Amino acid sequence: MKEAVFAVIYPDADTFEAHAEAVLEMLPGTRDFPGCIEAHVGINRERCEIGVFHLWESPEHLNRYLDWRAERGDLDARSATMRREQDFRTFSVP
Amino acid sequence: MKEAVFAVIYPDADTFEAHAEAVLEMLPGTRDFPGCIEAHVGINRERCEIGVFHLWESPEHLNRYLDWRAERGDLDARSATMRREQDFRTFSVP
Repeated sequence: MKEAVFAVIYPDADTFEAHAEAVLEMLPGTRDFPGCIEAHVGINRERCEIGVFHLWESPEHLNRYLDWRAERGDLDARSATMRREQDFRTFSVP
Repeated sequence: MKEAVFAVIYPDADTFEAHAEAVLEMLPGTRDFPGCIEAHVGINRERCEIGVFHLWESPEHLNRYLDWRAERGDLDARSATMRREQDFRTFSVP
């Protein structure tokens, strides 16, 4: 079954633009990763939030992607400038 | 600019399956609505949550869609069996 990711990131207000740019720059690498069907990033400057949506062919494809990001340190680099931990939820897509 | 919707719905546990079915049945009407680029629904039975993602050509297209759903009473019908209010967030998509 397909797997969706819904994440909301809460960057520090003073590093919001740099954080949003970094998340947008990750998008082509996500879309090119095996098993990625869709990936979108949204910005809300009023609430100072970044929304990330992915759709994957399976939970296994998503897990391989997350391992790859973790190995590269892409996720650690961003977490240093968050005002609170991101909200990361996964769902099965029938 | 494109507009994304990230919604998480928290149905009552005892009506979860009926609620998920009703949300999935709304999907073709959403995809057919003018301005809808993407619409996906995910299910998480462990957390008893339904995730809804939409991507729209503009905020105006989304607003017309929400007005249409409200006029039909589609949203009221579901809200009666939620254990708490849904989390509904919008984002601009660059």
